[in-house]
Amino acid sequence: MLDSTIVPQNFGANLKMAETYLGMDVGGTKLAVLVGNDRGEVLQKVKRPTMAQRGPWPIIDDLVEMAGEVLEKANLTLNDIDAVGVSIGGPLDAAKGIIYSPPNLPGWDAIPLKNVLSVKLERPVFVENDANAGALAEWRFGAGRGAQNMVFLTAGTGMGAGLILDNRLFRGANYLAGEVWKIPLIRKGLDDPNPLEFEYLTAGPGLARLARKALQKNPFSKMLEMVGGDLQKITGEIVGKAARLDDPVALQVLNEAGTYLGWGLAVLVNVLNPEIFVIGTLGIYLGDLLLGPARRAMRETAVPQAAEIVRVVPAQLDATIGDVAALCVAMEKYEG
Amino acid sequence: MLDSTIVPQNFGANLKMAETYLGMDVGGTKLAVLVGNDRGEVLQKVKRPTMAQRGPWPIIDDLVEMAGEVLEKANLTLNDIDAVGVSIGGPLDAAKGIIYSPPNLPGWDAIPLKNVLSVKLERPVFVENDANAGALAEWRFGAGRGAQNMVFLTAGTGMGAGLILDNRLFRGANYLAGEVWKIPLIRKGLDDPNPLEFEYLTAGPGLARLARKALQKNPFSKMLEMVGGDLQKITGEIVGKAARLDDPVALQVLNEAGTYLGWGLAVLVNVLNPEIFVIGTLGIYLGDLLLGPARRAMRETAVPQAAEIVRVVPAQLDATIGDVAALCVAMEKYEG
Repeated sequence: MLDSTIVPQNFGANLKMAETYLGMDVGGTKLAVLVGNDRGEVLQKVKRPTMAQRGPWPIIDDLVEMAGEVLEKANLTLNDIDAVGVSIGGPLDAAKGIIYSPPNLPGWDAIPLKNVLSVKLERPVFVENDANAGALAEWRFGAGRGAQNMVFLTAGTGMGAGLILDNRLFRGANYLAGEVWKIPLIRKGLDDPNPLEFEYLTAGPGLARLARKALQKNPFSKMLEMVGGDLQKITGEIVGKAARLDDPVALQVLNEAGTYLGWGLAVLVNVLNPEIFVIGTLGIYLGDLLLGPARRAMRETAVPQAAEIVRVVPAQLDATIGDVAALCVAMEKYEG
Repeated sequence: MLDSTIVPQNFGANLKMAETYLGMDVGGTKLAVLVGNDRGEVLQKVKRPTMAQRGPWPIIDDLVEMAGEVLEKANLTLNDIDAVGVSIGGPLDAAKGIIYSPPNLPGWDAIPLKNVLSVKLERPVFVENDANAGALAEWRFGAGRGAQNMVFLTAGTGMGAGLILDNRLFRGANYLAGEVWKIPLIRKGLDDPNPLEFEYLTAGPGLARLARKALQKNPFSKMLEMVGGDLQKITGEIVGKAARLDDPVALQVLNEAGTYLGWGLAVLVNVLNPEIFVIGTLGIYLGDLLLGPARRAMRETAVPQAAEIVRVVPAQLDATIGDVAALCVAMEKYEG
């Protein structure tokens, strides 16, 4: 039986309640607002379509309404919330919480989201771009746990990066660190009018483009059956499905896309010397079918001693990454 | 008259003696050992040729001898020295102070320089690679003073980078951050056997190579007179001299080299979003003749909002950078 007079010294610390957060994941197609805690656990969640063409103000009204709904579902009030975290497309000013025209959110020109939401919700609000928020999520609760130096690549419809350097998120001089989509990978020379960039060659649409090109040369592929002959329906997932059935065209496409991905990783190895790359959407769907060729190409083109020590792994949080990412933004409480 | 009873509150702090350091700059052609302080001032200095082919041990003996000499010149003893800083080619382990085969120092295979020197000198010894040490020097005492995020490029015979991120030196997972020389800038496609890298296209020997190529096509240039017709004598300095006399071939060469430099800067802008680039040797010798085209090419290829805010300037410490760099290594007292 426990002697009730013995109280562990850190008794108070153990009893400390988890902080409770509102998380908002503002994407180009869907909005999610959720209640969660500092263990990355989501307690309740509501979703709505973004209908991005409406512009910022109706969307912000929706977010506030959704906050009310999700709090009711969780039997909480705003008073129970320690902070609000918003994950949203950049460019944005993370200290001031101002959004500058993300490509997926038309009309958000210098929208002071942090101020507007903190007035409406009367809670402290924090804002990060989605790549940085995803990096925090994978670093705190996913594949990057314990890493001192980690690069997270979104690898979905776009190719953004979030950088954890020396154990903290690195944002850059005006919050634009990690805009790796714009790195040229193929450039023929001084007068090449059209260098091909990291995102163009490796994100979801780029992978589909490579697959369509390969199918035009060689239509004898399971991919074509899977989309009923409609090349426009080819996606990264279809390529992965066919590759797992040993479809040679699909395997060749993943080999090519993986090589380009590895070239991009090599640039980041040479600049940042990270210990781990965590690869988002495509990394999760395609695993080693994509990451195998990427590792190979990376080792062939990066500084060898730096390439040797770096691991390339899929993200772990999968479909929940946006939720956990928003909670992590609240947890960071970044003020600049 | 000053009232002698009024003592400023920070009187003690003002009276604090400057720390005194030994700095060692270990290059492939020359060794320098100097006495200096934490204001970056060099008090005394001795130099010897490296004679790198001797391998590590005679060179280390020389460094210890030179330490004795320079202390004598400064009327000091080892007891007056707070720390010893060594700036030397990488790769190396900055925490353990072990040197791993720098290209300019043959035979330095896993040499525990920090331990050996601290036993021989009986002072605390700290070691950094020369690009990182140069970055510290320009950040503390040169063109990068006050910057939160700065990239220093050596731009001499090689192209290494030292990264100051969020107000501190970023070293990477195994001290290989900033190995930017290896970034491919021209790559024709999937099967290009020979992508052309940042250092090959932009460092001193690359600039000379471009000039020789241009002179073979068009020999009507002041450069050829300057080297008495001997193409092997073309250097970055010669190109700069001729360009300042409006030699069209030299100007065209600097335009091309500057464009490549700008491509490299653009990659670093997209990854790191720094507020300033400080360009070493070639930046100092060639100034805007090189940096003008570099800025233009950078702005054409980098993320616009990040390229807009970044300045590209020559290093300020000039020939003294190696001395100040070694003092800065002592000042950092990095233990990992």
